[in-house]
Amino acid sequence: MSLEPGRRKDAFAPLFFAFGSWYSAMQNSPDSLYKLRHSLSHVLAQAVLEIRPDSKLAFGPPIDTGCYYDFLFTSPINADDFSDIEKRMRKIIAARQPFSGSSRPSQEAITHLEKLGQNFKAEYCQELAAGGEKEIGFFVNGPFEDMCAGPHVNHTGEIPPDCFKIDSVAGAYWRGSEKNPQLTRLYVLAFENKIKLEEYVKNRELAKQRDHRKLGKELELFFVSDEVGPGLIMWTPNGTAIRESLENFAKETETRFGYERVSTPHIAKEGLYITSGHLPYYKDGMFPPMQIEGEANYYLKAMNCPHHHQIYSLRPRSYRELPIRYAEYGTVYRFESSGSLSGLLRVRSLAMNDAHIYCSVDQLKQELKDTFHLTLNYYKKFRMESSHVRFSTHDPENKEKFIDNPELWKYSEDIVGEVLAELGAKFTMGPGEAAFYGPKIDFQYTSALGREETISTVQLDFSSPLRFNLTFVGVDGKEHRPFIVHRAPLSTHERFIAFLIEHFGGAFPTWMAPIQARIIPVGEQCYEYAHELEKQMKHQLFRVQTDSSSNSFNKKIREAVIHKIPNIVIVGNKEMEAGGVTLRRYCTEKQTAMSKDAFISYMNSLLKERVMDNFEDEKVS
Amino acid sequence: MSLEPGRRKDAFAPLFFAFGSWYSAMQNSPDSLYKLRHSLSHVLAQAVLEIRPDSKLAFGPPIDTGCYYDFLFTSPINADDFSDIEKRMRKIIAARQPFSGSSRPSQEAITHLEKLGQNFKAEYCQELAAGGEKEIGFFVNGPFEDMCAGPHVNHTGEIPPDCFKIDSVAGAYWRGSEKNPQLTRLYVLAFENKIKLEEYVKNRELAKQRDHRKLGKELELFFVSDEVGPGLIMWTPNGTAIRESLENFAKETETRFGYERVSTPHIAKEGLYITSGHLPYYKDGMFPPMQIEGEANYYLKAMNCPHHHQIYSLRPRSYRELPIRYAEYGTVYRFESSGSLSGLLRVRSLAMNDAHIYCSVDQLKQELKDTFHLTLNYYKKFRMESSHVRFSTHDPENKEKFIDNPELWKYSEDIVGEVLAELGAKFTMGPGEAAFYGPKIDFQYTSALGREETISTVQLDFSSPLRFNLTFVGVDGKEHRPFIVHRAPLSTHERFIAFLIEHFGGAFPTWMAPIQARIIPVGEQCYEYAHELEKQMKHQLFRVQTDSSSNSFNKKIREAVIHKIPNIVIVGNKEMEAGGVTLRRYCTEKQTAMSKDAFISYMNSLLKERVMDNFEDEKVS
Repeated sequence: MSLEPGRRKDAFAPLFFAFGSWYSAMQNSPDSLYKLRHSLSHVLAQAVLEIRPDSKLAFGPPIDTGCYYDFLFTSPINADDFSDIEKRMRKIIAARQPFSGSSRPSQEAITHLEKLGQNFKAEYCQELAAGGEKEIGFFVNGPFEDMCAGPHVNHTGEIPPDCFKIDSVAGAYWRGSEKNPQLTRLYVLAFENKIKLEEYVKNRELAKQRDHRKLGKELELFFVSDEVGPGLIMWTPNGTAIRESLENFAKETETRFGYERVSTPHIAKEGLYITSGHLPYYKDGMFPPMQIEGEANYYLKAMNCPHHHQIYSLRPRSYRELPIRYAEYGTVYRFESSGSLSGLLRVRSLAMNDAHIYCSVDQLKQELKDTFHLTLNYYKKFRMESSHVRFSTHDPENKEKFIDNPELWKYSEDIVGEVLAELGAKFTMGPGEAAFYGPKIDFQYTSALGREETISTVQLDFSSPLRFNLTFVGVDGKEHRPFIVHRAPLSTHERFIAFLIEHFGGAFPTWMAPIQARIIPVGEQCYEYAHELEKQMKHQLFRVQTDSSSNSFNKKIREAVIHKIPNIVIVGNKEMEAGGVTLRRYCTEKQTAMSKDAFISYMNSLLKERVMDNFEDEKVS
Repeated sequence: MSLEPGRRKDAFAPLFFAFGSWYSAMQNSPDSLYKLRHSLSHVLAQAVLEIRPDSKLAFGPPIDTGCYYDFLFTSPINADDFSDIEKRMRKIIAARQPFSGSSRPSQEAITHLEKLGQNFKAEYCQELAAGGEKEIGFFVNGPFEDMCAGPHVNHTGEIPPDCFKIDSVAGAYWRGSEKNPQLTRLYVLAFENKIKLEEYVKNRELAKQRDHRKLGKELELFFVSDEVGPGLIMWTPNGTAIRESLENFAKETETRFGYERVSTPHIAKEGLYITSGHLPYYKDGMFPPMQIEGEANYYLKAMNCPHHHQIYSLRPRSYRELPIRYAEYGTVYRFESSGSLSGLLRVRSLAMNDAHIYCSVDQLKQELKDTFHLTLNYYKKFRMESSHVRFSTHDPENKEKFIDNPELWKYSEDIVGEVLAELGAKFTMGPGEAAFYGPKIDFQYTSALGREETISTVQLDFSSPLRFNLTFVGVDGKEHRPFIVHRAPLSTHERFIAFLIEHFGGAFPTWMAPIQARIIPVGEQCYEYAHELEKQMKHQLFRVQTDSSSNSFNKKIREAVIHKIPNIVIVGNKEMEAGGVTLRRYCTEKQTAMSKDAFISYMNSLLKERVMDNFEDEKVS
């Protein structure tokens, strides 16, 4: 009898947990790639046992880049052994060994595994038996037998011999616990065919080069200080230049879209967060309070909304004023466990491109649509494509995470659904992914490193107007309840700049670049001319510097390229005589002579229109 | 025997405490105005006793606007009684009663006061006797006798009869304690002569109109929310527009002065503030910690310096990089008791125009001088005059408030002294007013309301480089210690904007004004034209609005003036036909017709050069 797949999937689930959505998608409809990878993990174990027969097997699941297997070896293994193992694997593949599945009663399975000398598997099998499991599945191919739920390819010959490679070796503990023996994990990359494998390897290499943590360090954009604390980003002058370019761009754009800017403190009394619902529904995400004896507990703000609601409440509002759109680059603080923090993507301090729109029910759909378009406009500007839009709704069962108001949840989710339909937007559903106060539209984006993240969000809030008793006087002279739209089209500085670093591979367009131009004088006789130009440009607020080091000309050029400076400005005798400069753009070797004025007006045009320099295109042309 | 002045000054000191430096200056060299005011308080008490003989006298000192006297009345007094009292006072003055001082042994003095029915004075006298006082002073003029240390004018006739007026009545407790009987305090304004008195009254009225708390509310610039917390300023769109104008101005100016911008979190671990010296020397000024179990205590930053030092320490520094100037509009949090908070001047959240300059000892004087000049440049721009410069030094006795390093204190204070001498700056000394880490140059300013405040500060820090082990590699290849200059030429947003509100009386120059222009259409047929102009201007990021209300034309103009909008743009049929506008500037009645283009280019010129519109001058011309 073949194994009942549901049961075995659960049993293995903890192993797959790290691969999240991919795993569940695959298990629900195991496709050929999944089967190939799963079969390959057997072939790997089989090959290893042929070379090292006294090895013990632990678990060996498929993963989203191939598969791995955990072994207990009697002597260490390293990368030099990989080609030997790979050769053996290819032999097994060439042998076209059929996979065949069967099952044994639990007790028999344990004895069988012990007889095979596979003590880890026997131990796990005992555990399953103790949990009531009656039958245990096995798969055989050639001389190799493994406890397994399948599915597999029909025979090893279906695995293309050049579709995989052993990638790396790592340490792992049996069942993930430090108390258990330490094992050796061999990772195998495996794709449909050789081309896909090579593509993945190449992209991964490119992605590694673009990792925002790596580039952030190399280009000295930001860092974390042990003394200040984990997840608290320290922005250097280079990183701050990027932040401010982005901030100015967003401020201008949103002013044109009718937003007004406000500025609020980073703390507030406990009572504000009880009213807002943050303390009942979001306490774990907040820093602990500062207790002021005889006065109040103060909390660092985790969101800007409650402060903005106070500005709305400053005086009675009339329908004539609506929609009111308050925007703030407010820094908020969220408590994340120190172990979960990583680069700019999981942090404790977040400077959010935040705004709250207060509008009447009649204006709500239009505001949601305008915000949707504003978000897409930003994406277009940065030449980003959202991988998809997610409509995040509440989970009616979870009263701890979502405000309990079924009627308004239905109303709000209907409105958002209608807006998405009217916009003709393709979307997936995200049940249980709503904010505690209302449904969301999340813009998902896959980074250069292949990570899917929520970048932007548009949220409908029906709850805060009730909790804060926000009103406006309508045309009818009566009090009405506004709706609130929360939105952050450019996410937080932290998250968005992480994406931009990887998106641009660190080569920022001139308007955002920390150093917009580096002047390279050819010989000391040109220093004065170079410094004069630098001074002139600095007065016009260009971020420019002169390389007056003792390095050779070629080294200076190389340094400028390493620092990914968009404009290299060469000044030698020829340029001095002509009163001009020679411009060499990042990543190109083309050199263009021009007058000083022409150069400065070129630079101004890049800045004024916030041109997205496309260095790759320039290279081709 | 006349009283020994030192002793009596101390005895009365608590009463005078509120008048701070003025009191001590006066007591050290009592001038004629002090004598006049002191004498007038006797004349006031004397006149009151003539009208209400059963009144009891408490204390009656001179103050910096005249004098007051505290009475226990058997029936309430109010402003209607003032003229009666003033008449009596003038009679006493006309009588040219000589003042004569003498003293009595303490016990005799007590009996004498009891006999006069002056129980409060008797009680106080008992206290002095218990404290070891042997002789108590009295002054007599005409029939009136008061326990007093003098000095006085020779006779009441020396008081100009029109140099004073009874100003107000207020409640006060005997010896300032709520447990004691409640008294009535009569305030008298008194100056050298009638002209000075009238000038003071007029200026005070103007000052009241300019009070930043009053204007802040009327012009809706900022507010404090009970829910957020006291001293935590909430900036509305209007106030934020002013903040951002100022911030952009400072950022541009300081970029041109060679500053680089950084951005740091608002919190840090306890350890950072132990290293910096804030926890040992400044703990009372900080908010209580957020305690993260098993990790660390986190504090809100009260200053930006420790964070900036971390950026300096990111990697080894070379002399070639110095001076490094890190600037940040960092919001810091300082704990002040809720009772001491007031408007924008005493707050808990402060957005500081902060920067730290790291330089070698050779560069130190120049950096101090440049910072001094930068500060004066800002003042010149805002047409402010610093009332004086204060050289704030440490108090060698106070080891709790100042880092204990006599040698470096001497060195640093000498350097600052030399810099002030070389600059030819006039200054006063502020002993004990230094920062805990080094001496300061404080720029004192007297506001439109007559308050003296420190606006800007330049500080030399010899301590942090030692505490943080900051170094740079010198020309000699060895490690050296940098010095640090802390500076805040534009103070905090809170303090500086408070001053600007009062300085401009709320009528901000166009480049800072929350609303830079209001368009007033003359009749509904002009609405479309007005809105078209508004749209065009908004696209160019002008802060402009159209008054489409149903108000009359005249009311619209009045409203714009009340809101102190610098440019009123009238569009009627005539303007529409000509394709132009009529401009009426704040506070003037002159109307200037011009083309739309000319108007927009005029507005652009105001913004581009950050012109300080001088509406008063325009009114005259």
